[in-house]
Amino acid sequence: MYIEKINSPADIKKLNIEQLTVLASEIRKGLLNRLSKRGGHFGPNFGFVEATIALHYVFDSPKDKFVFDVSHQCYTHKILTGRRDAFFDDEHFGDISGYTNPEESEHDFFNVGHTSTSVSLASGLVKARDLKGETGNIVAIIGDGSLSGGEALEGIDFAAELGTNFIIIVNDNDMSIAENHGGLYKNLKALRDSSGKCECNLFKAMGLDYTYVPDGNDIAGLIAAFKKVKDTDHPIVVHISTLKGKGFEPAEANKEDWHWHMPFDPATGKVLWGDSGENYSDMTCGYLMKKMKADKSVVTITAAVPTNIGFTEDKRKEAGKQFVDVGIAEEHAIAMASGIAKAGGKPVFATHSSFIQRTYDQISQDLCINSNPATLLVNTASVYGMHDITHLGIFDIPMMSNIPNLVYLAPTNCEEYFAMLDWSIEQDRYPVAIRIPCNGVIHSDEPADTDYSELNKYKITQQGEKIAVIALGDFYQIGEELSKLISEKTGTAPTLINPRYITGLDTELLEQLKEKHSVIVTLEDGILDGGFGEKIARYYGPSDMKVYCYGLKKEFIDRYSVDDILKANHITPAQIYKEIM
Amino acid sequence: MYIEKINSPADIKKLNIEQLTVLASEIRKGLLNRLSKRGGHFGPNFGFVEATIALHYVFDSPKDKFVFDVSHQCYTHKILTGRRDAFFDDEHFGDISGYTNPEESEHDFFNVGHTSTSVSLASGLVKARDLKGETGNIVAIIGDGSLSGGEALEGIDFAAELGTNFIIIVNDNDMSIAENHGGLYKNLKALRDSSGKCECNLFKAMGLDYTYVPDGNDIAGLIAAFKKVKDTDHPIVVHISTLKGKGFEPAEANKEDWHWHMPFDPATGKVLWGDSGENYSDMTCGYLMKKMKADKSVVTITAAVPTNIGFTEDKRKEAGKQFVDVGIAEEHAIAMASGIAKAGGKPVFATHSSFIQRTYDQISQDLCINSNPATLLVNTASVYGMHDITHLGIFDIPMMSNIPNLVYLAPTNCEEYFAMLDWSIEQDRYPVAIRIPCNGVIHSDEPADTDYSELNKYKITQQGEKIAVIALGDFYQIGEELSKLISEKTGTAPTLINPRYITGLDTELLEQLKEKHSVIVTLEDGILDGGFGEKIARYYGPSDMKVYCYGLKKEFIDRYSVDDILKANHITPAQIYKEIM
Repeated sequence: MYIEKINSPADIKKLNIEQLTVLASEIRKGLLNRLSKRGGHFGPNFGFVEATIALHYVFDSPKDKFVFDVSHQCYTHKILTGRRDAFFDDEHFGDISGYTNPEESEHDFFNVGHTSTSVSLASGLVKARDLKGETGNIVAIIGDGSLSGGEALEGIDFAAELGTNFIIIVNDNDMSIAENHGGLYKNLKALRDSSGKCECNLFKAMGLDYTYVPDGNDIAGLIAAFKKVKDTDHPIVVHISTLKGKGFEPAEANKEDWHWHMPFDPATGKVLWGDSGENYSDMTCGYLMKKMKADKSVVTITAAVPTNIGFTEDKRKEAGKQFVDVGIAEEHAIAMASGIAKAGGKPVFATHSSFIQRTYDQISQDLCINSNPATLLVNTASVYGMHDITHLGIFDIPMMSNIPNLVYLAPTNCEEYFAMLDWSIEQDRYPVAIRIPCNGVIHSDEPADTDYSELNKYKITQQGEKIAVIALGDFYQIGEELSKLISEKTGTAPTLINPRYITGLDTELLEQLKEKHSVIVTLEDGILDGGFGEKIARYYGPSDMKVYCYGLKKEFIDRYSVDDILKANHITPAQIYKEIM
Repeated sequence: MYIEKINSPADIKKLNIEQLTVLASEIRKGLLNRLSKRGGHFGPNFGFVEATIALHYVFDSPKDKFVFDVSHQCYTHKILTGRRDAFFDDEHFGDISGYTNPEESEHDFFNVGHTSTSVSLASGLVKARDLKGETGNIVAIIGDGSLSGGEALEGIDFAAELGTNFIIIVNDNDMSIAENHGGLYKNLKALRDSSGKCECNLFKAMGLDYTYVPDGNDIAGLIAAFKKVKDTDHPIVVHISTLKGKGFEPAEANKEDWHWHMPFDPATGKVLWGDSGENYSDMTCGYLMKKMKADKSVVTITAAVPTNIGFTEDKRKEAGKQFVDVGIAEEHAIAMASGIAKAGGKPVFATHSSFIQRTYDQISQDLCINSNPATLLVNTASVYGMHDITHLGIFDIPMMSNIPNLVYLAPTNCEEYFAMLDWSIEQDRYPVAIRIPCNGVIHSDEPADTDYSELNKYKITQQGEKIAVIALGDFYQIGEELSKLISEKTGTAPTLINPRYITGLDTELLEQLKEKHSVIVTLEDGILDGGFGEKIARYYGPSDMKVYCYGLKKEFIDRYSVDDILKANHITPAQIYKEIM
């Protein structure tokens, strides 16, 4: 076992090619151990083992600096830079995050989780190195799927201007999360097919020098190529062709399923637990498929995460031209949706709360100034969503709800969600965004309203007195529990309100509440700063009404327990009851 | 005069090439008339007269649809589509905006003012046309300066996938607002130099068909080229080479100065009024030049608007490697700044409030999660800033101040601004953004604090009682006036507070205020929703304190009078006094 002797990158340099090849297979065992038990990014890591070994063999980290794009392919880098135990020793799984993390190691420079950022971040390291008269290689490592993102293309275009040492490794495995989209992938294929010799070359067209490595899983070839570009005096792209998921047959065979994977049986690749019944991804897909069949002007759009709303490969094919995956290109997706809506189509764009952050200006300028009736579905927009610091779903309310003209809706259950979605697709006046519920599929016996065109009309679901609980979206159920607790403890039922609209106040209702209520409680599934409750607090600012806002503190949280976070923010019925009494 | 007979695009088709050439010179007279008296985008419009005539000659607007990027080159389009009077008749100047505007004409499809959006917006029109089984050409018109923007590159990359009629006119005048930046401009030059024949071709590398027009100011050549691509069955780029500012000698000679121009003497090109004394652009440039000379690790970054902080061509040259204009690439600018700061450099990135909207995710993910100490200067972040619906500076507080880890500062005068800027550059703990004052250069005799590292410490500038006025940034002076009015009218001086920090509450001070105050007034120069005052209202929500928040309504406003807007939002001392009493 060579792996036991690798405590820092310096130890790799002592091995010969044959030994490094054995090391690669040992590393894959560690990857398999962690990923089969804990889940994580599978394909990106299995495909990049050899390249990571070669990088650490040739360059001298951390003097030479690696910046990984998305950083979901950095596991081998972690293994080689002192974090081996987190893969081979189950008790140490929790020691590391799934992304590069400067708090873990001097070999990591950024917390990264979003795509297409590596070239720009690394170009900052280049610029600072040069300003300070320092030396060392700066190496950005970007996957082909990330290339289509605007930030990456801006960065690659700018890189040429640096005119100094800067190495951009393009890890081309002919895949994004799903298949690649965008014209540039034809060029990558032409480059692969011509072994890098094709005259028309995207990278050269952006002013960069270029070299090609045909087998990106061959350590000897990689080492030779990296040695050639080491200490280069100008920016250069090293295009390497790798096999996503290499070394694990199911992952090689089904690259999309194995991009990120749940825990599984390492012998068979089968997931360790079955489908947990209803989920909003499949239900949203089912609804949209039906809608698209009935109306040829409806079109579903995703940006490289088609399965976030259940559009697996078969569904994508079935939807035909009415389904568009734009690849990593969220900005383009929103602007295109605006254009479709302008011309009378009915676009529905869905992505995660964390990724819709990439489109603030497109929502504002391309969509909302023009008031075009596109529908945006915001997924995992919740404390119950993704738990990594780079993928939080707790910021979309302040980001989106303060953009004029947008109607942002927060459904409280399954039936209400689909009623809102249906209304949004059919109406032609407003840009509408909807938070897909994230606290489980909760059904209601109450028929959901079908018309949401009278904006900012809150719904009283329980008329009571003294206290009014205004509970938004996913936190409506906490509002229900709180309401019950208040009734039980005080003998007086509070008023319970489902506000539905995040983007405006029902001033008529808020005014009426003054008659029989002296306390308002607001609940929202996101940070409080810039959010929903603060608008209520402002409305009542000049009055005698006491307003208590509950939601999350403005902070980046990482790998958290939902229960802990709710408690820390006092968002349990018992805590709230105690505070308002 | 042919122009008098052009009431719609149909009338253009009746003229022959010679007549169209005369028409072009007539149009330039109209442009000169409006621009010399009213100011506006000069170079982009003067350079695009012939191309616009040719487009309307060949295509059939509005069935064929033109989408102008930034839309600051659409004046000739306006003249040819029924809005001639707004250029030739001074009394009708106010009839139109400076950008495409669907409310003005059926020939305009989007309100556009930000760069790099046309291809994506137009691709939506393409998709909707095809879904609905309609016909007609969709034409996006994008300038070379806009190409480096991420949204444009995402759109161009995606366009190839549409596989249907879509024409992208690249108006190449070898300029952005200032000179172009980015590697792709070398490729545009190679294409120009080879008359489009150079094998390495950015557009082909992105999967698009391509054709070149050497003289983009020659109507006959343009008409021939456009006729060839009309009704194409696939996406194609038509690369035309035009002369920015063509037909007005000063504008041809100094393209950057004449990109946008103040009113001027049409005979000489001289501006009609002189420098109005001190301004923050020149002062910021002066400060940064000095700082950069003293410290080689300081670097100033702009994104295609270098003169927004006074970096004219001579200053850029003088600053050398310590000045970086990234071109239209705001996302890249923020990420690069984060990288520079991570590696110990001291980056200062400046852009307008409206354009920093393009970087929400970069501020959040690339910069703030990593807590790198970069400085962002936010210009024209104010109701006193730019007045076009597409360039408003009233949304940055909700957009930025709710991002964790960012320290967002609002100086109230000149000395405080430069003290904050100096502190920010020298500290190494926080990402800091500063709103450049926008209500005139106001000096203070009070020495400004030099240390802002104790976060969220508000400053009491007048200790009083009963009422506390918390007046943020540019609205501090309104707070002063209000304070005086309250003192005069009631005989009791209120407390006046300069909060300085937009991103956090001074809870200690707010708690103390409860002792001798019963009313809080907050003032902020931006929309109230998601802003500063609401945080104060939330803090006092459960208490007896009465809180009145003053700021702007959440809405897109267009070509407004500042006085009218302030009055409509009740932001005058007299109105506030009346309401709180």
